[in-house]
Amino acid sequence: MKERVEMREGRSMILDAVSVMDTETIDLLEATGRVLAEDIYAQENIPPFSRSPLDGYVLRAQDIKEASKENPVTLPILEEVAAGQVATQPVTKGTAIKILTGAPIPEGADLVVKFEDTEFTSEQVTFFAPGKSGDNIVPVGEDLKVGQLVLKKGQKITAPVRGILAGLGKSRLKVYKKVHVKLISTGSELVPIDAPLTPGKIRNSSVYTLASYLQEAGASVTICPNVEDTVEAISDAVKAAQTDADVIMTTGGVSVGDYDHLKTVMTSLGADVLFWKMRLKPGAAFLASVYNGIPVLSLSGNPASAAISMLLTCVPAIRKMSGYSEYMLREIDGILETDFTKKSPNGRMVPGKLFIKDQKPMIWLSGHSGNGMLHPLEGCNIIGELAPSKEGVKAGSVVHAYDIGEFI
Amino acid sequence: MKERVEMREGRSMILDAVSVMDTETIDLLEATGRVLAEDIYAQENIPPFSRSPLDGYVLRAQDIKEASKENPVTLPILEEVAAGQVATQPVTKGTAIKILTGAPIPEGADLVVKFEDTEFTSEQVTFFAPGKSGDNIVPVGEDLKVGQLVLKKGQKITAPVRGILAGLGKSRLKVYKKVHVKLISTGSELVPIDAPLTPGKIRNSSVYTLASYLQEAGASVTICPNVEDTVEAISDAVKAAQTDADVIMTTGGVSVGDYDHLKTVMTSLGADVLFWKMRLKPGAAFLASVYNGIPVLSLSGNPASAAISMLLTCVPAIRKMSGYSEYMLREIDGILETDFTKKSPNGRMVPGKLFIKDQKPMIWLSGHSGNGMLHPLEGCNIIGELAPSKEGVKAGSVVHAYDIGEFI
Repeated sequence: MKERVEMREGRSMILDAVSVMDTETIDLLEATGRVLAEDIYAQENIPPFSRSPLDGYVLRAQDIKEASKENPVTLPILEEVAAGQVATQPVTKGTAIKILTGAPIPEGADLVVKFEDTEFTSEQVTFFAPGKSGDNIVPVGEDLKVGQLVLKKGQKITAPVRGILAGLGKSRLKVYKKVHVKLISTGSELVPIDAPLTPGKIRNSSVYTLASYLQEAGASVTICPNVEDTVEAISDAVKAAQTDADVIMTTGGVSVGDYDHLKTVMTSLGADVLFWKMRLKPGAAFLASVYNGIPVLSLSGNPASAAISMLLTCVPAIRKMSGYSEYMLREIDGILETDFTKKSPNGRMVPGKLFIKDQKPMIWLSGHSGNGMLHPLEGCNIIGELAPSKEGVKAGSVVHAYDIGEFI
Repeated sequence: MKERVEMREGRSMILDAVSVMDTETIDLLEATGRVLAEDIYAQENIPPFSRSPLDGYVLRAQDIKEASKENPVTLPILEEVAAGQVATQPVTKGTAIKILTGAPIPEGADLVVKFEDTEFTSEQVTFFAPGKSGDNIVPVGEDLKVGQLVLKKGQKITAPVRGILAGLGKSRLKVYKKVHVKLISTGSELVPIDAPLTPGKIRNSSVYTLASYLQEAGASVTICPNVEDTVEAISDAVKAAQTDADVIMTTGGVSVGDYDHLKTVMTSLGADVLFWKMRLKPGAAFLASVYNGIPVLSLSGNPASAAISMLLTCVPAIRKMSGYSEYMLREIDGILETDFTKKSPNGRMVPGKLFIKDQKPMIWLSGHSGNGMLHPLEGCNIIGELAPSKEGVKAGSVVHAYDIGEFI
């Protein structure tokens, strides 16, 4: 068991301990937000036929190559073809067919002239200028050609991806199963949120935030009943949580005090303890184990510490398990908007907001960086990483940050 | 009825035509992503009592003010208090109580000394330095004081907001009802996504993308069966969709061709037609009406045109209805990464990606800006607004953009 690992090392150890979920086949209707578990190739051309992008007349360019205002060319209209229909005959020399937006180009034709540029009756149409072969024709396969790789395994199914899959006729598709996380809070001081507060007690708020973040990361979450601060109770809860869990997360009991039982519990359960504590502020209290093949990630009992350490080190692992090909949080550099006066002799993670102003990526850092309430994370789309410094950080300084913008 | 309105004017007209939804009371467990319909005030202090942030000994600062390495002070330990417990007695002159993280500060005490800085047995504890009154004590109400405004009506319930609400004991809360959007696609060329393609037909992909975007914006969506290109069929579908719909959206039939029936339908139904067509490329084909009090927003039959015009002009209205206090898309200026060579004599909206590079907000624009497939929107987090120009736009130019980052 390692102790006091760097955040990046802890993150790597957790990432190495997890593997990608199995796959399942689901309806496209339920697929938004899931992760593709198959490469998607076009089975047909899109569009599947050459079509007209507008309302007009379709003909052979050859037949009006001499047309002009002075010498207009008039052709008979063979028939009309609307979207969803197919012309019953080809366009032959010296003829035209009326064509509407989205309709397939009839055989023999190579030019569509929009109706505004013609004069017409229901019988015949007159052209006043030549047109180039291919004009106003969307060629078959313009968007996608048969056999083309369209979407890759590991991509999230977003709104446009869902439309692309629909266009390809993928009504059923292979995705990765959702990671099922069981969340266990420990702490004799915690009462349920709908219970009255009695002296010495506080409400169990942390798991609600952690659960929402995990759901945004693609997991399904079960919040287990709160557990008393005893080795037996915690041990029983972890054993019970095994059933059906892909990951177990706990809060509380991971520091160095008399009631910090997680290390004892995980060791006595015979778990493989990966590391204890990180060089991370807030979020140093952390125990990572693997128990019967299930990662058990034990977070601080302080809500903000738990959330920050989970976002930085556990969320990438949840995303890796969920099948994302890009599972790390994006890292960016921004410019600090206003002085951050708090000193950080060992460095510090501070939630904040990244925004663009005067074509610069500005970072505002949450002033209230206590470990207690979740207020500092509210509305935040980044976590800033302040280097060790005996002073604060001045406005205008470059701040490195982790992008948690997906989670707001 | 206005014709060919500017995008901003069309957006304003739609925004003016909608109103905020009624409210409902739901469980906090189901509240993620919903919008608060009440201001939230703290009903208690958080934390509800002064507490110790660490394991140590709690005493009166007065009693060790002379303590030093040379002259250590030893006090008897009255008892031990853990998180969730309350001391059975006050700390009196010349005594100490063992205190664990999260436990309430006993009466009479004003200082906690961490155990690492002491020597102790189970009976007594020795101090080697003085401590300041208030040190290592988290005061009652440090995070929130009774009566303080904590969260505002119109805020989205994100992960940290949910934790804050849990901490305040808000197990039930008032939110705005979800906007129910009914989506009707029109077009005789469209077949369901699981049906084989026959000549002249294409798959109905657009509604799948629109539905996902609308769900991300907070709406619930019903995809109605596709409707043939006839006035009667479309009219019947719109009439039927009234039941239970807060907004009706249609795709197709809003251009100027023989089969573009939406204007006829809405007029004959006696709807108040707000405007027809926008000066927007892509997305010019657009009809906005109000029918029996229900906004009917008729989008282009081209998937990308429909999505772009909907994101820019309808999504703000859906968010306004959903109760968001900030419902407009954020607008930002970025710097074009590579030349965009396509000419835009009338200006053009182009989906793209905003990213931070070398502390600059760079914009990459989707090259494929055809109206057909949805590929151009894939992975995009902005829609760039290119000013009218007879040439393309050079790398390094400033590009104005609308932030759709919430939708990926």
